Amino acid sequence: MCSAVRAVAGFGLVAITACFADAREGMFTPDQLPDIASDLREAGLELDPDNLAELTEFPMAAVVSLGGCSASFVSSKGLVITNHHCARGSVQFHSRAERNYLEDGFLAESMADELPARPGSRVFVTVGVEDVTEQVSGGLDPDLPPRERFQVMEDRRKALMKACEADEGHRCRVSAFFGGLEYKLVKSLEIRDVRLVYAPADAIGRYGGDIDNWRWPRHTGDFAFYRAYVSPEGEPADHAPDNVPYESEHYLPVSAAGLDDGDFVMAIGYPGGTSRYARHVTVENRFEREYPRFVARSREGIAVIEAAAPEGSDLRIRYTGQLAGINNGMKNIEGQLEGARRQRLVERRAQRDAALDAWIAADEKNAPLADAIRDYDALARESADVSRRYYHYNAARSSQLLDIARRLYRLAREQQKPDAEREPGYQERDLRWFRQRLSRLDRGYHASVDKALWMYGLRGYLAEPAENHVAAFDRAMGLGDDTDEAAVSSILDGYYEETVLEDADTRLALMDAPLREIEAHDDPFLRLAVAVYEPDRQREEESKTRSGRGDLLRPQYMQAIIDWQRSQGHAAYPDANGTLRVTYGTVLGGSPMDGLIYEPFTRLEGILEKDSGVAPFNAPVELLERARAKDFGTYRLASIGSVPVNFLTDLDSTGGNSGSATLNASGELVGLLFDGTLESVVSDWDFNPRTTRTIHVDTRYMLWVMEKIDDADWLIDEMTVVP
Amino acid sequence: MCSAVRAVAGFGLVAITACFADAREGMFTPDQLPDIASDLREAGLELDPDNLAELTEFPMAAVVSLGGCSASFVSSKGLVITNHHCARGSVQFHSRAERNYLEDGFLAESMADELPARPGSRVFVTVGVEDVTEQVSGGLDPDLPPRERFQVMEDRRKALMKACEADEGHRCRVSAFFGGLEYKLVKSLEIRDVRLVYAPADAIGRYGGDIDNWRWPRHTGDFAFYRAYVSPEGEPADHAPDNVPYESEHYLPVSAAGLDDGDFVMAIGYPGGTSRYARHVTVENRFEREYPRFVARSREGIAVIEAAAPEGSDLRIRYTGQLAGINNGMKNIEGQLEGARRQRLVERRAQRDAALDAWIAADEKNAPLADAIRDYDALARESADVSRRYYHYNAARSSQLLDIARRLYRLAREQQKPDAEREPGYQERDLRWFRQRLSRLDRGYHASVDKALWMYGLRGYLAEPAENHVAAFDRAMGLGDDTDEAAVSSILDGYYEETVLEDADTRLALMDAPLREIEAHDDPFLRLAVAVYEPDRQREEESKTRSGRGDLLRPQYMQAIIDWQRSQGHAAYPDANGTLRVTYGTVLGGSPMDGLIYEPFTRLEGILEKDSGVAPFNAPVELLERARAKDFGTYRLASIGSVPVNFLTDLDSTGGNSGSATLNASGELVGLLFDGTLESVVSDWDFNPRTTRTIHVDTRYMLWVMEKIDDADWLIDEMTVVP
Repeated sequence: MCSAVRAVAGFGLVAITACFADAREGMFTPDQLPDIASDLREAGLELDPDNLAELTEFPMAAVVSLGGCSASFVSSKGLVITNHHCARGSVQFHSRAERNYLEDGFLAESMADELPARPGSRVFVTVGVEDVTEQVSGGLDPDLPPRERFQVMEDRRKALMKACEADEGHRCRVSAFFGGLEYKLVKSLEIRDVRLVYAPADAIGRYGGDIDNWRWPRHTGDFAFYRAYVSPEGEPADHAPDNVPYESEHYLPVSAAGLDDGDFVMAIGYPGGTSRYARHVTVENRFEREYPRFVARSREGIAVIEAAAPEGSDLRIRYTGQLAGINNGMKNIEGQLEGARRQRLVERRAQRDAALDAWIAADEKNAPLADAIRDYDALARESADVSRRYYHYNAARSSQLLDIARRLYRLAREQQKPDAEREPGYQERDLRWFRQRLSRLDRGYHASVDKALWMYGLRGYLAEPAENHVAAFDRAMGLGDDTDEAAVSSILDGYYEETVLEDADTRLALMDAPLREIEAHDDPFLRLAVAVYEPDRQREEESKTRSGRGDLLRPQYMQAIIDWQRSQGHAAYPDANGTLRVTYGTVLGGSPMDGLIYEPFTRLEGILEKDSGVAPFNAPVELLERARAKDFGTYRLASIGSVPVNFLTDLDSTGGNSGSATLNASGELVGLLFDGTLESVVSDWDFNPRTTRTIHVDTRYMLWVMEKIDDADWLIDEMTVVP
Repeated sequence: MCSAVRAVAGFGLVAITACFADAREGMFTPDQLPDIASDLREAGLELDPDNLAELTEFPMAAVVSLGGCSASFVSSKGLVITNHHCARGSVQFHSRAERNYLEDGFLAESMADELPARPGSRVFVTVGVEDVTEQVSGGLDPDLPPRERFQVMEDRRKALMKACEADEGHRCRVSAFFGGLEYKLVKSLEIRDVRLVYAPADAIGRYGGDIDNWRWPRHTGDFAFYRAYVSPEGEPADHAPDNVPYESEHYLPVSAAGLDDGDFVMAIGYPGGTSRYARHVTVENRFEREYPRFVARSREGIAVIEAAAPEGSDLRIRYTGQLAGINNGMKNIEGQLEGARRQRLVERRAQRDAALDAWIAADEKNAPLADAIRDYDALARESADVSRRYYHYNAARSSQLLDIARRLYRLAREQQKPDAEREPGYQERDLRWFRQRLSRLDRGYHASVDKALWMYGLRGYLAEPAENHVAAFDRAMGLGDDTDEAAVSSILDGYYEETVLEDADTRLALMDAPLREIEAHDDPFLRLAVAVYEPDRQREEESKTRSGRGDLLRPQYMQAIIDWQRSQGHAAYPDANGTLRVTYGTVLGGSPMDGLIYEPFTRLEGILEKDSGVAPFNAPVELLERARAKDFGTYRLASIGSVPVNFLTDLDSTGGNSGSATLNASGELVGLLFDGTLESVVSDWDFNPRTTRTIHVDTRYMLWVMEKIDDADWLIDEMTVVP
């Protein structure tokens, strides 16, 4: 046990490392939990592991997805807790320079004052998971041409989803596990009247901002509340005044006692994606080419937005979400690059591939498998080449309005077909989301910034050799060999002057416009969208053919690596894929690098140390005063002598886990998972137990802020706070 | 004892903080050590504290100054150990693009191959310290006009130094202690044939470079060796082939066993300056105005140099020292600003002043003292105003050639007077140094960079309002209201085209030129120097008048604060002033901020973690291989399971301490002090025991590098290495 050696930590790193090396790899699907019941019990879980497999029971039924973020019910009246950064889009949506909820925070005084969340906001409650492997990939001729394989499998998936969604108010999807060795049909209740209840000010909820993002020590109050509403009949419905709070049968009690160093902890949420089985070809392309370029381009993109949307302007408020997103992604990738360097990821992945390939080659009858893996690598190389070739062409279309125009035209084309044959994203089931996305452009768009970003994208494209250009695009935009920047700029000015797409009603009306009308439309963005449709479709066809090849090859590789790992005594678990997962471990500090130790908890006093009065280190005066006065209320953790603000665990997490319920051994909410340390992020590719640490905001800090700073008593009263 | 609570460190910060709060404030003069003998013994010192007061005995006699850096003898043959960054100027002086000792390191194969250190290099051995307070400031009429007071005191100091330096080969200076309450005459042997013996490659000696500078964790092999040479007769002499190594009677044994966590440690060296008694007026001006501007200007200055001296060019090699210096200073000041913010230095200093003022005001007979302190504050405000007013004028003269021209003309003027009346820096005793400084311009100068920096300085000056301009300067340079940048640029081009000062022989010859010749010289820099001489002299007179006022007022303030502190039970110690000091404490990690802990030692393996192959994280392959192979030799520290690279202590240090001998309880060399953490640097103004940590390179790492990487066996054999 780790706590046994912790007492001697001060004597040197040997003991500490031994202790910190405990981090547990694995994002388990609920149905795997009974299999690891004894591990869970040994680690400290007091709930019955078998119960954890029940999606419709406590605690699983209390955990929901917001689509990209995780969250959970904390009252019987549909009150949902998630990260501040997951709800911030809604705060931003309602903020203006003169009424800035980002700056001041937002607290509804009662249910009646709750604000509609940003259009498109959803609460998804997973209600069922069914194995559909046979229905998706069974009985297919190995010699089926790849494009056909792709289509058959896509059609099967669509049919499964359609049948599932016949149950009104539900959303279904087919998710691949183990790279397509298994498929599961995941069915969720889709609640679409979501309202913003409470979000503390950025100066609490985003404390430390981009500077502290991915960092430890951390002092971020990254929590906020939504509420799920349904029709008076209890069915999912669009936002309406007479909707009523969703009756959440299962919800999490909120612990005011929290955890201490070394305690058992688990997090339940929806991790987005990991690539732990990726081959060297892919890893090398990503870490030696794509990621370095991504970082450079992100940095430039930030500069473009910052120049076009100056600090303090209303424009900057509109683009604050995008800026935060780019910064966040860039810092993540920088961390992955640095982590990959330290772990010698690329080199080690080559070694792993070689070892696997050798194991396969050792048995003569594996020759076809060896061929399949060789083909799989060749396919990855081909895909990387294509993606490199068209990188700047894709960037050359980075205007939000062009994106909308392309979607509108594609929609009109797809609507020519029967629903079942339409491209995913353009079927009847997708149109509500489509409409909402179209309508919410305004709060994150301005022509001047959109143009600046488009110009930036075009600049790189113009510098590309002719073979990487798309003739139809160049023709439609009037780009030639001698087009200089001034000329491009004035071409773009024409687009923004003439477009009608800035008007939301017009955009929405175009969703129902007949194909002919869109093809004859004189909006310049629509004209451009029409012009590039055919060549883009051609590229898409090629891409689907490659997907079909992958669908045949990838499962063979996955089966091989699973067998190989099993032969070495390791059990495999599926990469994260946006489905419900459980990760467990302990509250644990760490040593991310020689000479440095992370403590497991941060304290209120740490805010006093960091606070400069200047954003993002500008906590409210009230908070500083109460911290200085050591007004801890009932939320003090004895071992640190203060209110714990954030804490570290050795849980295995990734993007999408944001907002995950962090539970103690008896299933009480003790925190929200909101970040990983920068040293952890390379774990998406290669889990390193020494450096992987996940960051949580402590419920004691949330309750302290709600009670002492924001007077959110009615919400505290609504929740079941347990001592 | 700290080690008693260390065992429970893992249980939380309460114990750790109690432990880490032990840092000891105080840079003691050797003669203070017998007074604190019991403290020293209790802390663990095994040497007789009385012996430490003896400048000509072991170990004090082994510790020397390089003028700006500290160092010590480690053999009887004048072998001197100091920091790599203290000797790096000499490495740079001998480096060319095609023979780059910075990159490859330098190791003389034998004494005969040792290279002359950079011109002006010195080894100063303190041989005596005498109290001369009465001779400097005694018997002066309080009503003496300030300008006269200044002159009398300066003349007295010059006379004392002259008498002292009658002893050939010695350098003497009068240093103020406690702001002029005491004066001491410090006499040093001045060895001026200094040779470079060994400096590891930058990739070891400057590992981590500007990125790691002021940071922990650290892995820098910041050590190098000089040797002191004297004439065959044993007297200090200019560099000459038949000079012989200086016989250093006292030298430090070098420990191969080193220290462990919690061990007693002391450092002996020459800390440059601290301002712990500064009043609020000064602190506020420095931290709210001068330092922020300094940081901004440094950043711009670096950009100017980097643009003018591109990476990889020979120019960049020439300016590498200046760049490192600016970066170093900037990072220090940024750290001071951040530390001041955290410690609320400005606010707390206002409170301290108010408390002292109230204590003084409580006694009616203190009225004259209260007046003096008021005057002292007014004087500080006045000085700050003048310095602000002429900031950009000073920057407008930031050309190395102009600086030389001004010095040459000033020298010619001063040489009109009897030696005793000349300005310090221009007396006979100064001319050798003056000559050497003139001769070494070439290795850190190029017209294009000098011009770029001068342009940068002028740009700020031109933007200043008329009242901050100096008419004579504007007239001489031809600057008017309508002078734009292009015009300034072409004016400066003229200067560099026409000047003769780039030639070292010409510069040296001009030292002996008669005043008339210089005044009639047509070198544009000399013409400009002549033109600004009178207005500059006028400002200097005003400055000396203010100094005279300070000489009267400051000691009264110092006496008051000493009395006040004594009334509260605190003993005062003098601010650092470049004289020999001792600081003692323990090997100790720390918690610089909530949630983060520094371990006391770093390990060889930490280099493997940091190393990216790209400077400044590009250790030699040999080093990486031996570290990976855990080829620790005899230098392993059991408690960390590796060779210790750097370590932290709670010693009280500042700039000038670089290269200080770090000694164990029995006076063996266990390391070299080379840096402080960024959280420590504000200690120059306000010592904070929680955050102040000093960084040392461990002798075990030095010996490991010498033995395993650089094959410097003959030096290891020359030293007395003790197990």
